[in-house]
Amino acid sequence: MQVKAIAAIAPDAPLEPTTIERRDVGEHEVLIGTKFVGICHSDIHTVRSQWGQITYPMVVGHEIAGIVEEIGSGVTKHQVGDHVGVGCFVDSCRECENCKAGLDNYCLQGNIGTYNGVGRDGKPTAGGYSTHIVVDENYVLRIPENLPLDAAAPLLCAGVTTYSPLTHWGAGPGKKVAIVGLGGLGHMGVQIAHAMGAEVSVLSQSLKKKEDGERLGADHYYATSDESTFEDLQGTFDLILNTVSANLDLGRYLPLLKTNGAFVELGAPEHPMEVPAFALIPQRRTLAGSMIGSIAETQEMLDFCGKHGLGAEVEVIHADKVNEAYDRVVNSDVRYRFVIDTATI
Amino acid sequence: MQVKAIAAIAPDAPLEPTTIERRDVGEHEVLIGTKFVGICHSDIHTVRSQWGQITYPMVVGHEIAGIVEEIGSGVTKHQVGDHVGVGCFVDSCRECENCKAGLDNYCLQGNIGTYNGVGRDGKPTAGGYSTHIVVDENYVLRIPENLPLDAAAPLLCAGVTTYSPLTHWGAGPGKKVAIVGLGGLGHMGVQIAHAMGAEVSVLSQSLKKKEDGERLGADHYYATSDESTFEDLQGTFDLILNTVSANLDLGRYLPLLKTNGAFVELGAPEHPMEVPAFALIPQRRTLAGSMIGSIAETQEMLDFCGKHGLGAEVEVIHADKVNEAYDRVVNSDVRYRFVIDTATI
Repeated sequence: MQVKAIAAIAPDAPLEPTTIERRDVGEHEVLIGTKFVGICHSDIHTVRSQWGQITYPMVVGHEIAGIVEEIGSGVTKHQVGDHVGVGCFVDSCRECENCKAGLDNYCLQGNIGTYNGVGRDGKPTAGGYSTHIVVDENYVLRIPENLPLDAAAPLLCAGVTTYSPLTHWGAGPGKKVAIVGLGGLGHMGVQIAHAMGAEVSVLSQSLKKKEDGERLGADHYYATSDESTFEDLQGTFDLILNTVSANLDLGRYLPLLKTNGAFVELGAPEHPMEVPAFALIPQRRTLAGSMIGSIAETQEMLDFCGKHGLGAEVEVIHADKVNEAYDRVVNSDVRYRFVIDTATI
Repeated sequence: MQVKAIAAIAPDAPLEPTTIERRDVGEHEVLIGTKFVGICHSDIHTVRSQWGQITYPMVVGHEIAGIVEEIGSGVTKHQVGDHVGVGCFVDSCRECENCKAGLDNYCLQGNIGTYNGVGRDGKPTAGGYSTHIVVDENYVLRIPENLPLDAAAPLLCAGVTTYSPLTHWGAGPGKKVAIVGLGGLGHMGVQIAHAMGAEVSVLSQSLKKKEDGERLGADHYYATSDESTFEDLQGTFDLILNTVSANLDLGRYLPLLKTNGAFVELGAPEHPMEVPAFALIPQRRTLAGSMIGSIAETQEMLDFCGKHGLGAEVEVIHADKVNEAYDRVVNSDVRYRFVIDTATI
């Protein structure tokens, strides 16, 4: 079937409306009528070929929320009318050690990206900036009915990218968690860590978003432009999530961790991180990376957000504003996620 | 009491014989007649003021094995004649969160170094390059009777520095562990990891010490000068201990870890480590530091080594060869630890 979409046609050209082909629904597949799709910074890096050469036209979007319109004859997990979501990948090898262990986000064969990937049918995948998408039922998530679909869409990437390290490194009651940066990822990290029962601090360049941070659940809010922040907070945190993809001075951030504390990189800075060994060794600290979350974790996160009534703070836009929105994301001028209303595509 | 010792008198002068004062044995203290003391690279960094300015004369040595000669009236843990050891620290605050949790090696007040520290009596501490030392009974370790004291001395630093991360990061049956560098630390790491039941690989610059490595328990031995090593071993290890304090190319080493694998720095390279984020994020890898081990862990390690009959491979030297030995350590020309026979001091 032909469906409407918004595509990038060159690294430096505006995105523009187009139509793309979606395959017929297979036995174990689901046709989703999309409702909202979040704009993730990764979308921008991808369409501008900043993360490597891509093939145009390219339809991005991996924070997809919608409603099931059709199911294959063998589908058991979803029904027509269900609220569902699709995140960063739409398939994985299902056979490697990691897939078998439920860590399909770390599939050793490389999972199949929701866009900029190659599906099992041998055709390029196309993402959520379109009115419809066909996905294997095992890679479709249930969105709790109490969550508005616009606020739920960004959970599929920003939500699980923070939820996964928060659970893996044990955020919860009695734990002190810092979130570096209050943007798309950070504003979800604060809400989730707070709902998990942790004591949450935001480390942001300035205090400009302090009120927002506290409203979202932060117990404390510190400006990293203030040198005293780094002196006062030495040895404070069990876990620090870095949602900022710039190169931070880790010689100042790592000492903010307690003994056995972990500093987790969620965004990849352009240059190698410079890590002084004396910032890790004397208190057995760790520097780690974490990438999105598994399908099982994503479902767990959605259920958790449903239970606690959490969603992204979104600015819903008309499809013809996508290029403007891209510029604003690059300038960090969004509180906290743009979401495209796919009815306007 | 006045006891014989070997002291550094200036950063660039040879060590020379001297006498130093040891305090009377306090109520909870033990007088140890030293038998053997290992030469750790840290000793050399310290006496040469490479790790910061120190006060001369300086008596170093923190791999001490000896026999109890006298005990204070309140001592319950040790008896005259016991084989005992002293490691890198001789006291800690005993009151901080870490000390209370049995992590006195990470004492938040900073524990008291066996040398280059200041004791509770307000006087500078002096290490094991001497015939006797007085230490609080709680910081004195029991050395199993079946271990020769010369081979046991290096366990107090090199042994526990590898044992602690091996236990903390779960080395054991079914786990693949790599040890980078087959020197003083590395040759203990191989033995201990093997005795724990892990599958052990050595990553060494060349294959020169391959036979030794295999005799010590390595299942595999790879040369890092061979580029194919890094291609062939991608995603192989659960844990890598880096015993080399040079700046390695972590962009090549980190990808050798499996998903969730940890690369642990034991030695501090001079320059900040350069860590490409893409080497951590895609498989949730961690880069960590680890520093010696707690008193409880050190005892556990000694008991483990006693049970498995493990010790360092040592070259016992006369005290007047210490300066020559220092030069050889700096040139990595020792298999695998020099140990001073303190009867020759």
